[in-house]
Order: sequence, then structure tokens, then C-alpha cells
Amino acid sequence: MNKRVEKQLESRTKQRKVEVSDKQTGDEMVFTDLHEMVIRERMIPYRTPVINDDITLRNSQIFYEEMKMRRSCRQFSSRDVPLKVIQNLLKTAGTSPSVGNLQPWTFCVVSSDSIKTMIRKILEADERDNYVSRKKGASWVVDVSQLQDTWRRPYITDAPYLLIVCHEIFRDVHNKTERVFHYNQISTSIAVGILLAAIQNVGLSTVVTSPLNAGPDISRILRRPENESILLLLPLGYASEDVLVPDLKRKPVEHITKLY
Amino acid sequence: MNKRVEKQLESRTKQRKVEVSDKQTGDEMVFTDLHEMVIRERMIPYRTPVINDDITLRNSQIFYEEMKMRRSCRQFSSRDVPLKVIQNLLKTAGTSPSVGNLQPWTFCVVSSDSIKTMIRKILEADERDNYVSRKKGASWVVDVSQLQDTWRRPYITDAPYLLIVCHEIFRDVHNKTERVFHYNQISTSIAVGILLAAIQNVGLSTVVTSPLNAGPDISRILRRPENESILLLLPLGYASEDVLVPDLKRKPVEHITKLY
Repeated sequence: MNKRVEKQLESRTKQRKVEVSDKQTGDEMVFTDLHEMVIRERMIPYRTPVINDDITLRNSQIFYEEMKMRRSCRQFSSRDVPLKVIQNLLKTAGTSPSVGNLQPWTFCVVSSDSIKTMIRKILEADERDNYVSRKKGASWVVDVSQLQDTWRRPYITDAPYLLIVCHEIFRDVHNKTERVFHYNQISTSIAVGILLAAIQNVGLSTVVTSPLNAGPDISRILRRPENESILLLLPLGYASEDVLVPDLKRKPVEHITKLY
Repeated sequence: MNKRVEKQLESRTKQRKVEVSDKQTGDEMVFTDLHEMVIRERMIPYRTPVINDDITLRNSQIFYEEMKMRRSCRQFSSRDVPLKVIQNLLKTAGTSPSVGNLQPWTFCVVSSDSIKTMIRKILEADERDNYVSRKKGASWVVDVSQLQDTWRRPYITDAPYLLIVCHEIFRDVHNKTERVFHYNQISTSIAVGILLAAIQNVGLSTVVTSPLNAGPDISRILRRPENESILLLLPLGYASEDVLVPDLKRKPVEHITKLY
């Protein structure tokens, strides 16, 4: 498999060209812990707005109040979402920083009912297997009907869109294929955080879902290249009007903050 | 070491109590791939605002335009930031979803000059070691003065605050200490993404910095518990007026999006 990936990447590298956004927006090297050249990029001036402390304080409060309202939703309305909105959300995610500005993410936007159904089946089968295998020899007792409810994933097909977040795990560096799983996972997860903020900002809902062990099967359905792995799945739409969410609490800020 | 961690966690678990935010804001189980009980939380209704498509589209555009302006900054003004603003930003990060709502993050807020200086020294020494060891036998040629510039981290001490993002890597599950590195890293990185959006929203700047191999030494300085690891460092403040940023580009949305 490693050799297959190497070959694939080799042929891809030959066709690779520099990708430049028409908006000339930018980002830059964040980590240096890749076995790459120290590249001195051309530096340009950058300006941020000057805001007084009172307004900064108020803005930080308003943004918190908005994000605080976010909850992971598993019941979606069938109401459609304009594709242009999805595109804006993904553009926003794409403004995220990444190791060496490699931008290792791909967002697969699935609106096809048949593909959503296939993915849901794979996820549910995998989930059922996980529970069954865990139950063996484990000390917990859960009745079967409850388990069945647990492994069901109706929201995967109910939401008008299913976003599948992929990240590169192999990359060509100095003509050598290297595994860059660790940092690409962090970078792509940070992009997902910015995406969640953007989703909340427009009143849409999602639930961050793990592919568990179903990643490779879903990759095959989507024909993703072998240097990519599925990090997360995000069903996306408007929450249904009668949505229920678990009554769970967030830690108070004093419990997650230490002052030095 | 593993046994030491276990003992530490054991004594901690005894004192652990349920932490409930006064605001009663909540979040919930996101992944189920932890060896934990299937807990049926009490479900509560949830409402999102009803917004028409035109406004949703406009809001998504405005948020993108705002996030698009974000750049990683390495030059900070000495202008102070009210601690209340930092607190709001971290509260916002704390609204992030996490595996089983475990909220595995701790944000160390360092304003002490002496601690910032110690951390900078450790980071620079580690960075220098990395370059020197890589240079051995490597084919690249970079002159020493350029390297010196590369491993310098003045922004670590220049920014009024240095946020150090920690995440749990060991956790007590069913009275067993388990390594939960993988998901906790994803969850904490997602929280960092929401934090970056919040930072950009108030006109502050940061640069996501990796501890590289200096994590354990920095943990010791901050006396972090052994079940935690340092994920990232975020110097935080206002960008200096004459800040320069690398002239790098973001990929156009068509290159990071695939439609199905």
C-alpha cells in the first residue's frame, strides 16, 4: 500500500501547479517542524483595525453569546440550504492556518441521496460491530433495543448536505513521500473549528461525527485518493423544529483556565 | 511513568465532582468510540432562529470576509489586552464539541514576563537543535545568520499574553486509566479553531505555534499534571502597526471542495 501511494503521488506531483486564489488572500507557514526547506517568503505589510478596549470587550461578549448557543443536532429539517451558503462556509474554513500553509483539507459535499444512504449504511454497520465486539467480555448491560437506537444514524441521510472532511496523510516533500498525519490532523481539525463557528453564525446546525472504522469504505465510495484519510463527517442543515439535544453542561471558564 | 500517571489520576478521581456552568449551556456526546457506557442523557428541546435564505447568504458572506482577513502575526504591539477579553475568548473556545463532552482542554494564560522568557528560551533551544540535527547529512544549504533568524521566537515574549493549549492524553474510564490522545487532540484542535475565529472577531492577532519537542519541558515549568500534553502555543495581542506577514495564498474554494 505504501508503494502504491508513493507511485500515485509521484505521478500527481508532476501535474501539480501553484494554486493561487483570485482574491489574493493569504496565510503562511505556521509550524516549521516539517522536513522542508526554510523558505523566506516575500513579506507584505498587514493592517488590523484599531478598536478601543470597550468595543473589543463588547464584541468578545457578543461572539461568545452566539457560539454558546451552538448545540450538536441529530434531527434535521428537510429545508434546503443554498449551495452558495455551503460554499461560503467552506471558504471560511479554508482561511484556517496550517502547517507550512499546506492546506491539507478537502471537503466533500454530498447532496446525492444514494451516496448518503450508502454512507449511512456503512456507518451503522460499523457502529453495530463496535458495540457487539465491545459487549463481548465487557461488564455492561444494555438491552438490544437501546443498542439499536444507539447505532442508528438517521441524521446522515436526513440533512440536505453531508460534509465529509478529508485530510492528507501522505505528501511529497523533496520528492519523497512522507507521512504527515499528525500535523495535518491538527490543522484540519482547526479548520473544522472555524467551520463550526461559521455554521453557527448562519443559524445552521451540524454534529461532528467520527467515521470510526468506516473511513476506508467511505473513501472508496467517494473515490478519494489514497493519500487522503477521512477525519470527520458533518451532516449540515437546519435543525428540525422539534429537535431534542442532550442536557449536558459546559465547564465554567475557571475550570479550563489557569493563570500564570 | 504510566503507573505514576495512574496513581495521580486515581487520587484525582476521588476528588472529582460534577462541574456545571452557571449559565446551563451545554454540549453533548459527539463520538461514541470510547470504551464507555452508552449513557442516555436527559433530552431537552432546542431552538434555532428562523432566518430566510437571503439573510443566511449575506451572513455567511460577511463572516467569510471577516475571517479571510485573518493572518498569523509574529510581531505584536505591547498594548495590553483586558483580561476579561481573554476570558471571553476562552469561554468561546469552551463551547466547542468534544468526544463524549469530555472537554479535554486546559488553556494556560501566561502574562508573567519571567515565565514567558523561560518558555521562549526552551522553544528557541529546541528549534535550534532541530535545525542543526537536520542539517547533518541533509542536502540543503542555508547560511547561519538566516538560521539564527529562523529559530528566534521574539513573539513569544512580545505578546502581552501567551496561551498554552493543553489536552488530556490519559483519562480515567471505568476506573481504568486509558490513553485517549487521538480524539482529545482532534477535539482540542477544533476548540482552537473556534478560538481563532473569536480572536479574529475582536481584532486581536496570534500565530499557532507548535511546541515541537519542547512540550514536556514547558509542562514542567507550568506544573501541568502528567495526564496532560501541550498541543499548541498561541501568543496573543494586538498586531504591531508595522507587522509584516508572508505573501502566501489560500487555495480557491474549487480546489478544496468536491461535489457529490
